[in-house]
Amino acid sequence: MKNDVVMSGMRPTGRLHMGNMMGALTNWVKLQDDYDCFFVVVDWHALTTGYQNTEDLKENIRQMVIDWISVGLDPKKCNIFVQSHVKQHAELHLLLSMITPLSWLERCPTYKEQLKQLESREINTYGFLGYPVLMATDILIYKANKVPVGKDQEAHIELSREISRRFNYIYKPVFPEPEALYTEFKVLPGIDGRKMSKSYDNYIEISAGPEVIKQKVKMMITDPARIRKNDPGHPDICNVYAFYTAFDEQNNIQELKEACEKGQIGCVECKKKLANLIINKMQPIHQKRKELEQNPKTIDDILDNGAKRARLVAEKTLEEVRNAMKI
Amino acid sequence: MKNDVVMSGMRPTGRLHMGNMMGALTNWVKLQDDYDCFFVVVDWHALTTGYQNTEDLKENIRQMVIDWISVGLDPKKCNIFVQSHVKQHAELHLLLSMITPLSWLERCPTYKEQLKQLESREINTYGFLGYPVLMATDILIYKANKVPVGKDQEAHIELSREISRRFNYIYKPVFPEPEALYTEFKVLPGIDGRKMSKSYDNYIEISAGPEVIKQKVKMMITDPARIRKNDPGHPDICNVYAFYTAFDEQNNIQELKEACEKGQIGCVECKKKLANLIINKMQPIHQKRKELEQNPKTIDDILDNGAKRARLVAEKTLEEVRNAMKI
Repeated sequence: MKNDVVMSGMRPTGRLHMGNMMGALTNWVKLQDDYDCFFVVVDWHALTTGYQNTEDLKENIRQMVIDWISVGLDPKKCNIFVQSHVKQHAELHLLLSMITPLSWLERCPTYKEQLKQLESREINTYGFLGYPVLMATDILIYKANKVPVGKDQEAHIELSREISRRFNYIYKPVFPEPEALYTEFKVLPGIDGRKMSKSYDNYIEISAGPEVIKQKVKMMITDPARIRKNDPGHPDICNVYAFYTAFDEQNNIQELKEACEKGQIGCVECKKKLANLIINKMQPIHQKRKELEQNPKTIDDILDNGAKRARLVAEKTLEEVRNAMKI
Repeated sequence: MKNDVVMSGMRPTGRLHMGNMMGALTNWVKLQDDYDCFFVVVDWHALTTGYQNTEDLKENIRQMVIDWISVGLDPKKCNIFVQSHVKQHAELHLLLSMITPLSWLERCPTYKEQLKQLESREINTYGFLGYPVLMATDILIYKANKVPVGKDQEAHIELSREISRRFNYIYKPVFPEPEALYTEFKVLPGIDGRKMSKSYDNYIEISAGPEVIKQKVKMMITDPARIRKNDPGHPDICNVYAFYTAFDEQNNIQELKEACEKGQIGCVECKKKLANLIINKMQPIHQKRKELEQNPKTIDDILDNGAKRARLVAEKTLEEVRNAMKI
């Protein structure tokens, strides 16, 4: 019996990269054993900033879910579904919108920041302002009490807590107060050393085949101070070393580190080893991915079943909400 | 075959008064013959200003619908249902919120005015700001092209048109551009001469029995210049005369008018005649009301069937919307 409920969502950005895998996804795979987990493709959220560009939305959902399952999410252990398949989210969003003071949304730190960053996209819309209400809905509708987040999303969890408290105070206690669940995970840099991100074009996709992996590893920036093969290296500022740290589960890394520091192994050789390590590590994931791509129905079924189970929980919460509000 | 689609809604304020009857309701009764009408109890709208006070919501819905039917709305001719029973409204509201610029809502003339008027109610919420999006949803989800409105609601229809245009432009043509349907109807003053309104306590309910009608008519303010019975009266500034104009379908009114102007009939007698006229006119309405009150299931069935029919139309529109948005 799992007592705590976890909800976490990702916008459907399409194929995920290894940064996503080593970060959120590996964490999710661990969480599914200990918590009652709701992992949601938040496609309605994607509209808050991307309503003008929905051409690839459905394919992006499919590719992302293939990545989720390939990496180890198990639909027998957790609920995997698409937000827009569970219409109850829209109803609860509308009801919570009635009790959410405008000022709470306007003061949300990420709001004005994003408005500035995405200036060209005409996102100064009603829906974009209400993004945190939609996020609170996703959490509260499953009565999730634990939400795995990065530090930059703390404000949204805080807002979900405030909306929960306000609802419970005006009507009667229905919702828990969700807490942030901070978990340690490895941060994988991009091949250029910055944060791995699609917008920096410094990423390696989870679905990248051996040739792409080799090529991307070859492009990795290493210790810039090391010019000749037998110059002593500085692994701590080397991207290749960062990848070793993330991928090397057998802990052969100490040996390699010393060899680098003594100038006994060159970057080219070191990169070849790394590429092979990654290729091996990814092999079962790619195998799983291939199976899922060959049987499109599998993903359809997983999402259908996930939505069915999610709807049951969501509808139960909504019944309590409607009763509390006497509507 | 009715070609044009009409949508109109009322907030569930409970028992309606004769001002509502002579205004909107009588107009609706006429419209149901010529248009495909969707008459909606907009209970979610009621939350935008009344979320803190929902105690009587369900009973208010019932009493209002009893009034609707008693006055002549015929569920065989039109669709009568409750907004919150058709969940599709919530989904379309969410989708339209994504494309609605904030500035359109902030500049809405009724918005700031209402904020001021209802200052004590803490209605500065996200949902209250989005009220016109919810109204546009109610109209567009049935592809209504005609919306009977008073002059003060023109801005909302204009906003619905703008949202319709913007959706059709960004994705593809799905929605018509709804037009205001101005129809002449009688304006019934309150018994004190101001607009009949629950907040002025100057109203007579549709459900008011003979005794209440007599008593309220007795309280009516007449021509203040007329002190003695045989002073000449001025019907044009007399509330009793205004009620005659609204209720007297046999046009016996000219005779009475002359008698008043010549000082041949006193206010007391004139009021007695009026009370009887109203009581007679309301008799079949009260009869129908009584039947509906004695059989609560009748209203339940009407609303269930209405919601079923509305859902079919709404779901069809939403399928087109989801296809257009590729979501």
